[in-house]
Amino acid sequence: MEPRLSLISLGVADLAATHRFYVDGLGWPAALYVPGEVLFVQIGHGLLLSLWDLDHMVAEVGPVGSGPAPVTLAQNLSSETEVTEALAAAVAAGGTLLVPGARRDWGGFSGYVADPDGYRWEIAHNPGLRVDDDGTVHIGPVDG
Amino acid sequence: MEPRLSLISLGVADLAATHRFYVDGLGWPAALYVPGEVLFVQIGHGLLLSLWDLDHMVAEVGPVGSGPAPVTLAQNLSSETEVTEALAAAVAAGGTLLVPGARRDWGGFSGYVADPDGYRWEIAHNPGLRVDDDGTVHIGPVDG
Repeated sequence: MEPRLSLISLGVADLAATHRFYVDGLGWPAALYVPGEVLFVQIGHGLLLSLWDLDHMVAEVGPVGSGPAPVTLAQNLSSETEVTEALAAAVAAGGTLLVPGARRDWGGFSGYVADPDGYRWEIAHNPGLRVDDDGTVHIGPVDG
Repeated sequence: MEPRLSLISLGVADLAATHRFYVDGLGWPAALYVPGEVLFVQIGHGLLLSLWDLDHMVAEVGPVGSGPAPVTLAQNLSSETEVTEALAAAVAAGGTLLVPGARRDWGGFSGYVADPDGYRWEIAHNPGLRVDDDGTVHIGPVDG
């Protein structure tokens, strides 16, 4: 089984609200939208985000827990300024600011914003993370 | 805020067990491993999976819920046979088979296996999903 992710699915309670945030608000293009069922958005090279109506998800995968999922989705940007701007854009799109941009113990700068279901997006500037043109990721400790 | 995912973090209760499954079991290379804190594995073009000690995660992002997260990670493969083989490999690595490979309402074939924390990996063959060489994803309904 090779190390590859094709699609990440998040169960959502109100897909219309999800569509308003991601497509109308953030302006992310829908790769496929089936109202009441699923919204797919491309969020990387060969990678889809699937926002899946929770009842449909449970019908296929079984019961799920409650409360905020112990999961974060992160977007790495080039500077602290870009992080601050992206957090503001997400709030303007209807997201909820959870944690304003701040310096982190791990050496970078990041903040958190929640989508309509409370899924947390971390917007970060991590100086220890670098991606080559071919997609290879390098991550290491951040100095000082 | 552009539609891009750099990193997905999953909070894990026992990082050593997580390492045994993903690195020792599945053979996925660690991009960075800090025992007791975090394990990074590259799972796509410019994309990292971050398996983050749950206490460290909660310290940064706040309390999380309980029970199975309403999240699935999916890997799309080229045939039903490949799905069956990948599910078997994940079980051999210490994963828990949740749902054997089966035809799905959405037109494909998939099964589910859980990692040590219960995070669900869907191994799928979706004939309606196609990825161009440049990473562009096409998804559409699957014909009968």
